[in-house]
Amino acid sequence: MLDEMAREHAAKADGLPLRNENGDIRAEVRDAVAAAVEEGDATRLRALFADLHATDQSDLLLSLDPADRPRLIELLGDAFDFAALTELDETARTRIVEALETRTLVEGVRELDSDDAVYILEDLDKEDQDEILDQLPALDRVALARSLDYPEESAGRRMQTEFVAVPAFWTVGQTIDHLRETEELPERFYEIFVVDPRYQLLGEVPLDVLLRTKRPVAMVDIVSDERHQVNATDDQEDVARRFERYNWVSAAVTDDAGRLVGVITVDDVVDVIEEEADEDLKALGGVKADEELSDTVWYIAKSRFSWLFLNLFTAILASVVIGMFEGQIEKMVALAVLMPIVASQGGNAGTQTMTVAVRALATRQLGNANARRIVLREVAAGLLNGIAFAVIMGAVAVAWFGLPDLGLVIGLSMVIVLIAAALGGILIPLALHKLGADPAVSSGPFVTTVTDVVGFFAFLGIATLWFRLS
Amino acid sequence: MLDEMAREHAAKADGLPLRNENGDIRAEVRDAVAAAVEEGDATRLRALFADLHATDQSDLLLSLDPADRPRLIELLGDAFDFAALTELDETARTRIVEALETRTLVEGVRELDSDDAVYILEDLDKEDQDEILDQLPALDRVALARSLDYPEESAGRRMQTEFVAVPAFWTVGQTIDHLRETEELPERFYEIFVVDPRYQLLGEVPLDVLLRTKRPVAMVDIVSDERHQVNATDDQEDVARRFERYNWVSAAVTDDAGRLVGVITVDDVVDVIEEEADEDLKALGGVKADEELSDTVWYIAKSRFSWLFLNLFTAILASVVIGMFEGQIEKMVALAVLMPIVASQGGNAGTQTMTVAVRALATRQLGNANARRIVLREVAAGLLNGIAFAVIMGAVAVAWFGLPDLGLVIGLSMVIVLIAAALGGILIPLALHKLGADPAVSSGPFVTTVTDVVGFFAFLGIATLWFRLS
Repeated sequence: MLDEMAREHAAKADGLPLRNENGDIRAEVRDAVAAAVEEGDATRLRALFADLHATDQSDLLLSLDPADRPRLIELLGDAFDFAALTELDETARTRIVEALETRTLVEGVRELDSDDAVYILEDLDKEDQDEILDQLPALDRVALARSLDYPEESAGRRMQTEFVAVPAFWTVGQTIDHLRETEELPERFYEIFVVDPRYQLLGEVPLDVLLRTKRPVAMVDIVSDERHQVNATDDQEDVARRFERYNWVSAAVTDDAGRLVGVITVDDVVDVIEEEADEDLKALGGVKADEELSDTVWYIAKSRFSWLFLNLFTAILASVVIGMFEGQIEKMVALAVLMPIVASQGGNAGTQTMTVAVRALATRQLGNANARRIVLREVAAGLLNGIAFAVIMGAVAVAWFGLPDLGLVIGLSMVIVLIAAALGGILIPLALHKLGADPAVSSGPFVTTVTDVVGFFAFLGIATLWFRLS
Repeated sequence: MLDEMAREHAAKADGLPLRNENGDIRAEVRDAVAAAVEEGDATRLRALFADLHATDQSDLLLSLDPADRPRLIELLGDAFDFAALTELDETARTRIVEALETRTLVEGVRELDSDDAVYILEDLDKEDQDEILDQLPALDRVALARSLDYPEESAGRRMQTEFVAVPAFWTVGQTIDHLRETEELPERFYEIFVVDPRYQLLGEVPLDVLLRTKRPVAMVDIVSDERHQVNATDDQEDVARRFERYNWVSAAVTDDAGRLVGVITVDDVVDVIEEEADEDLKALGGVKADEELSDTVWYIAKSRFSWLFLNLFTAILASVVIGMFEGQIEKMVALAVLMPIVASQGGNAGTQTMTVAVRALATRQLGNANARRIVLREVAAGLLNGIAFAVIMGAVAVAWFGLPDLGLVIGLSMVIVLIAAALGGILIPLALHKLGADPAVSSGPFVTTVTDVVGFFAFLGIATLWFRLS
C-alpha cells in the first residue's frame, strides 16, 4: 500500500521516477546528473532538477560524489533551491558552502526565509558571513545579523523574521483587506500577531479564528487566551520541549524588552527534537553528537578514540582487581573462565537501568517527586533478577565444573552485582544531572566501572574467602 | 532568563504557582489536591484545576498516588479535561481508564477531538470500547468506530475526523461566509480541503492563501501544487518521516478509494517521532519499548529478564572460548588478568559502530547507495584505533608484567578485535535490516558475541601459539 502511495506521489526528475521502491534515489537518475555535471550541461541539469522539492534536491545532491556537489549548484543557478542545503548534515553542508562562489551564495540565500538563511550562514566564519551579508538588501541584512547575534542553538537562531503583525485597533475586515492587498507577505503563516505601537506583543489570532469572525470585530477582542511565546535567548531544546508538551504549531519570539522579533514554527522544532534524541542515543553508544555519515575516516577515528581511551582506564581498573586474586585463579582456573559472565551480566543490567534513567531525565519524567520510588523499583528489580540468574548460573557452574561450592559462589556474586548495577545505573545519572552534567554523555563509563569492579571483586573475593574457609 | 520566563508564564492552581523553578509540580499544590481528594471536596478541586492546560492537569494528576487518580477525575467532573489522559504513559492511562465509571468516560470522551478519543479508547478491550461507543451520539460513534477499525499505529488511528471540506465550485467568498456562519467547526484547522461530489480529494487551500485571495476566485483555482496526503492504512512512522522530511504541518488522510476521511496534524506527529527515537534508544540499551516509569517492579524485572537471559548465552559462549585455553592460563595467570581488557575495548568499539549504523538505518541515511563506503570507513577507523590501542596497551602490559612478548600478543589481538568490532558493528545491523528485523532491537547481542568471542580467542590463541613457539 505504502509502496503504491510512494510511487503515485513520486517526484520525477525530467520524467524519470526519482526513487526506487525503498525510497532511495535511483542509480539511473544519479548517473544522469553525474554525467551532466561532468559535461557541464546546465540545460539538462535544470530539466532534471525542475519541480523537485528541496528535500528531493537535497537527497539527489547527497548521492553525488562530494567534489561534484558545488559544481552542480553553480551549474543549476536559480533552479537550485538553497533550502535543500538545510536538509544536509553539517559536514556535507559546510564543505559545499565553503566551495561555492560568494555571488552564488548571495543569490541563493536571498531567496530563503530568514530561518533557513541563518541555518546556512551560521556554519561560516564571521568574515565570510559579513562578506555575504554586505551584498544583501539592507532589510534582509539587518534581520539576519540580528538573528546571528543570538547565542547558538537559541530560539533567536531558529526563528523566522517574516511574520504578520497588526495594530490592536484594527478590525477583522481591515486585517483581511491588508492581507489581500500586501505583496510582501511571508510564504506561509498560521496566525496574525497583535502588537501595540512599541511592538509589544499583545496576543495572537490563529487564522481559523480570523476566518470565523465577522468583519467589524476588533482584532484585540479575538486574541487567544493561551500565549504561545518564547524568548529569543531561550535554548532551542527548552523551546522544543514546550512545543511538544503543549502541542503548539507556532510561537511568537520576543526579545528581552518584550518586543515581537520573530516566529518559530513546528517544522523547525521537529528537527530539534530529532537532533536531541539523536544526541542522547549517540552519547549512550559512546559516539560524539556531531559525528555524521559524511565524516572522514580520520575524523571519526579521532572522535571515537577519546571514548575508547576512557573505557581503557575502566578496563584496566577491573584488571587490577583481577590481579589482586592472581593466586586464587592459579589454584582454580575455573574462576578465570566464569568471571567474565558475572561482570557481563552486571554491565548489561546496569546499561538497562541507565538507559531508562537517562531517557526519563531527558524528557523530564524523572524528578525529585518520583526519584525515590524509581530507585527503589530498580533495586527491587535488580534483586529479583539477581536471584533468578543466581539460580540459573549456579546450576550451569555446577554442571560444568562439578563443584557445588562454585555454584554457590557465582550465585551469591550474581545477586550482589545486579543490585550494584541497579544502584549505579540510576544513582550515577541522577547525580550527574544534579551536578549539571549531561547524564547521557558521561554515565556509561562510570556505570561500567561500578559493575566491572563490583562483579570481579565480589566473585573472586567470595571465592577466595569460601575456598579458604572450606 | 528561562527561569524568569517560566515563572512569568507559570500556570496557577487556584492562585498558587503550579511549578517550582525546575518545572516540577510544587509539593504544596500536590498536597492541597491530595487533601481535597481525601475529603471529597469537589469545589476545592474544581478551583485548583480551573484554567489549567491539559498538560498541566496531566502532570498534577501524575504527581498523585495512583489510587487517588480515578477518584480525582470523578470529583472534578467537567472541570477535568480528558485530553490530559493522552499525555500520560500507557500504563498510567490504562489503569485510570479502567477504574473510571462508564458514564464519566462517556462524558469525557464526548468532549474530545476524535484523535484524542481514539487514543484513549484504543487501550480498552473491544467490549468496553463498544459499551462507551454505544452511549455516544451517532455521528461521533461512526467516526470513532471507523478510526478504530484501522490497524494499530496507522494514520487512521492518529487522524482527526473533524475537518473543513468544500466543493470545488465554491468561491473564496462563499467559503469565508460558510466559516463565519457554521457553528460546528473543528477546534483548530490549518487548511480547507476541496473535494468532488464523491468526496474525492482534489486539493487543499492553506488558510493564509484563502486570506490573501479576493472573494470571487474559485477554491479549485488556488489549491496547492504540493499534495500533503497519506493513506489511512499507512504506518504512523512512515507518515512521521514524511512530515519531517517535507516540513508538513498537516496532511489529508484518504481511504483506499481516495475519499477524504480525516486530517493528521504535526502535533500528533511530534509524539510519534519522539516515541520512535525513544524506542531505538531503549532497544539499544536492552530495554523493551513499552517499558514505562509507571510500571511495577514485577513487570520491569520480567521484561528485562529476557534480554539478560539472551546475554547470558553470549557470556557463556565467551567463557567456553576461555575454557579452551585453561592450560595456558594456568601457566600464565597474567593472561586472565589482561583478557577482559581486549574484550571490553572490542565491545565498546563495536557498540560505537553499531549505534551509528542503527541510527543511520532508522533515519534512512544509510542505504544501498552508501553502504559500501560506510563499511570501508568503519573498518579503516577500526584499524587506526586498533593500532593506537595496540601501542598503548602493549606498553601497559610490558610495564605491568615485565614481559615484552605479552605486549606484542595483546597489541596484535587489539588490532584484530577492533577490526572485528567494526565489521560486526556495521554488517550485523545491515543484515538484520535486509532480513526485515529491527536492527535496534537485535543487533546488540550479536555484536557482543562477535567482539567477546573474537577478543578472547585472538588474545588467548595468539598467546598460546606465541609462547609455545618461543
